Amino acid sequence: MKTDFAKLDRAFNPRTIVVVGDKGDNKYLWLTAQSEFKGALYSVQIAPQEFDGIAALGVKNFTSLMDVPDPIDLAIVSVPRVVAPRVLDDCIQKGVAAAHFFTSGFAETSTKEGINLEKILIEKSQAANFHLIGPNCMGIYNPRVGVKQSPIQYSGIAGPIGLISQSGTHAINFSIEAHLHGLNISKSVSFGNGIILDSADYLEYFAQDKDIEAIGIYIEGPKDGQRFFRVLKETAARKPVVIWKGGRTDAGSRAIASHTGALAAQAAVWDAAVRQCGAVTAANMEELIDILKAIIYLRPVKGDRVAITGGSGGLSVAVADAFAEAGLQVPRLTRKSYDEFASFFSLIGGGYQNPVDTGNANSREMKRILSILEADDNIDNIVLLLTARYKSMYLTDQIINATIDMRNSTSKPVAAILSYSFSAEYMEKAQTLIKKLQDGGIPTFVSLERGALALKKTLEYYRSKNSQKTE
Amino acid sequence: MKTDFAKLDRAFNPRTIVVVGDKGDNKYLWLTAQSEFKGALYSVQIAPQEFDGIAALGVKNFTSLMDVPDPIDLAIVSVPRVVAPRVLDDCIQKGVAAAHFFTSGFAETSTKEGINLEKILIEKSQAANFHLIGPNCMGIYNPRVGVKQSPIQYSGIAGPIGLISQSGTHAINFSIEAHLHGLNISKSVSFGNGIILDSADYLEYFAQDKDIEAIGIYIEGPKDGQRFFRVLKETAARKPVVIWKGGRTDAGSRAIASHTGALAAQAAVWDAAVRQCGAVTAANMEELIDILKAIIYLRPVKGDRVAITGGSGGLSVAVADAFAEAGLQVPRLTRKSYDEFASFFSLIGGGYQNPVDTGNANSREMKRILSILEADDNIDNIVLLLTARYKSMYLTDQIINATIDMRNSTSKPVAAILSYSFSAEYMEKAQTLIKKLQDGGIPTFVSLERGALALKKTLEYYRSKNSQKTE
Repeated sequence: MKTDFAKLDRAFNPRTIVVVGDKGDNKYLWLTAQSEFKGALYSVQIAPQEFDGIAALGVKNFTSLMDVPDPIDLAIVSVPRVVAPRVLDDCIQKGVAAAHFFTSGFAETSTKEGINLEKILIEKSQAANFHLIGPNCMGIYNPRVGVKQSPIQYSGIAGPIGLISQSGTHAINFSIEAHLHGLNISKSVSFGNGIILDSADYLEYFAQDKDIEAIGIYIEGPKDGQRFFRVLKETAARKPVVIWKGGRTDAGSRAIASHTGALAAQAAVWDAAVRQCGAVTAANMEELIDILKAIIYLRPVKGDRVAITGGSGGLSVAVADAFAEAGLQVPRLTRKSYDEFASFFSLIGGGYQNPVDTGNANSREMKRILSILEADDNIDNIVLLLTARYKSMYLTDQIINATIDMRNSTSKPVAAILSYSFSAEYMEKAQTLIKKLQDGGIPTFVSLERGALALKKTLEYYRSKNSQKTE
Repeated sequence: MKTDFAKLDRAFNPRTIVVVGDKGDNKYLWLTAQSEFKGALYSVQIAPQEFDGIAALGVKNFTSLMDVPDPIDLAIVSVPRVVAPRVLDDCIQKGVAAAHFFTSGFAETSTKEGINLEKILIEKSQAANFHLIGPNCMGIYNPRVGVKQSPIQYSGIAGPIGLISQSGTHAINFSIEAHLHGLNISKSVSFGNGIILDSADYLEYFAQDKDIEAIGIYIEGPKDGQRFFRVLKETAARKPVVIWKGGRTDAGSRAIASHTGALAAQAAVWDAAVRQCGAVTAANMEELIDILKAIIYLRPVKGDRVAITGGSGGLSVAVADAFAEAGLQVPRLTRKSYDEFASFFSLIGGGYQNPVDTGNANSREMKRILSILEADDNIDNIVLLLTARYKSMYLTDQIINATIDMRNSTSKPVAAILSYSFSAEYMEKAQTLIKKLQDGGIPTFVSLERGALALKKTLEYYRSKNSQKTE
């Protein structure tokens, strides 16, 4: 099948959406999810007992897709699996640009009936070159126009991230978690069994979408590995791609079989192939969010030598361990820097070997400390440690402002780490500080390990990019 | 020096505390920290400008330690380093049971003056067999009697954990974080440079304390490695010990040198020695908390085969990967279990290969699902997945109740994982659910990876314990 980007443009930026088969049992999930949609929303439902519920949502219902007056850009299909082929017939006949089949119960169940029904969907779609998304998935999310995969997603904001996820749970969780960490979606698709449009198709489409600056992928297994890696390499040459592969282990692979029916690959082989293409691997949701955030916010990372400041005592030891264990260097500073520190820095309750431990009065000298680290030839990257538990918000604000000022006048990547307590109070404080830092262009990570890994992976991305340039 | 447990009993359970040298510049940190102390609290301060501030706290001040009328169980010393030897003289002369020196600026600064002053403290203490805690540390925490290392710590609660930490930051952070995760302190000590009483002394003391069920350690380096590992082995034979070693890398070791001046050991050698002693290694604060929690709450872990249920779709894949990557098995269930599942379990949007994916109507059958897993001969441990984002709290409560019921009637370890969003709202919900689970005896972890690691380490602990028995 030939992917038609014009059809995908209509599906991802629809003017008219039709939800087929939404019902009260499911709390009208799909109509409710589109309540902030800026275009025309219709329902198709033949069961009379649902008519009042649909009318109560202010949505016009038709008893046949053929009766909908407008051209349909996106159909969201939530019908029992046995009805799916008939709805697909209607979509094709009506000239729907693309249909997202939420309906599940196909090959992923390993049942004869499921496998057979999936085969019918494939044959019909292929014959008509019909753009079917799914089945067994949560479909499209475009927060700008209010097309959503779940009522709990945000709308009205447009971010730089394109997300391609075989899992609907991960697609929705990513959008919410990344948003809470200050990273927003441009477009996202959950594609489940991927029987017609597969990961490579979405990747090709997102590669040419100018609103998407970086792409995140959760994948269980591409249908056509060779094509996937070819498209991945082409895409990664144009914009950063970070991939979380589900089913890295035998146990995970077995879970995949009953989830989307994809075939598993050996983790080491997969990782090597991804890196070969110039893309970056992530091992879980947190890494996917953190690495994309680092890549979007950071200046190009050119080396592995990190200066760290802001911590105190045991925390300085822990952060040095975390960065070194992630494969980064926390080197000694230059003689020149040490001489400057010696001229003012109090060693009582502090230290400046690197990490520059400011768990004492030295924290008031952060501007000076940062300027020494910025000028140090042994240092490629600067990391600020903060805590949401500081007593003095005034001092914390001063430190943040000094770091943002420095960030705006250096070519060195600057990141921050702000660990928070497992309490709502400290989390709220942490979020305020993180927003301030990120509004100032400084990506902020919520644990030592997460910050270290995100920086390391961003370095890997730039190294791979540079080595491909010189090939 | 011979450790005198009677002196330590007085210091850890004091009836009289004297704070020496507290001042307004430091917001009377140490007097404020003891504001919930149930015994007699006095101040010793010679600076007249501090008298009003101390009186305002309702604390009686003396201008000499010798004037304090009661026998002193614990002195907390917060004076400039040059004054430290004179205060130590007074403590010795007055017969103080033990003194915690918050004062820093000794050998950890690598300055001649600091090294020399530390030497004087050592000589004086050794000559008098004086029990000096520190210097350069946060001292003792006993929440039951209200002796605290920081005003932000809790009091009035007694938990099962003894914590020995070379770092004051980590000691305080551990107490607060572990508490937020439902794990409380019996006694804790931050011992900094450990020039007189060292890690091994506190370990010996906590080993014989009947209120302490498990011991956590943050250590940068023991003074006497041979003695430390001997005491560790003796202690680990009596109760679980979990150790987080700071300075696992060259960068971390350098940070240690300016923190507490301890000598670093190679990480692999250290880990092997710890395991040889029957203790458990942790790589960071999170692991220290999670492993102690698992060991305190779980029934003995006898095997590595885990059944997981409660997740949905992509989450089932992710949890299977996380447990397998932690070195645990997520095996197929028995034929008998599969036959039972086949009789009622809907495969549409679910699966029961293990993980048992209940992201559909099957979640209403959790009682039945758990009972099948409990009886399955291929399964040693059962893990429940929950989310704070469930729509139906009624269903969530039913699932939690069913799991607690099962936990109370099985010898298999039962744990739960509840991931939460980076938002205050979901964190509050998560905390409510975690409390409910843990009150029911089910340790609950806040990410897939953290849960997997805690279970794996607890299994390692029991395997080591059993192999030592049979030696």
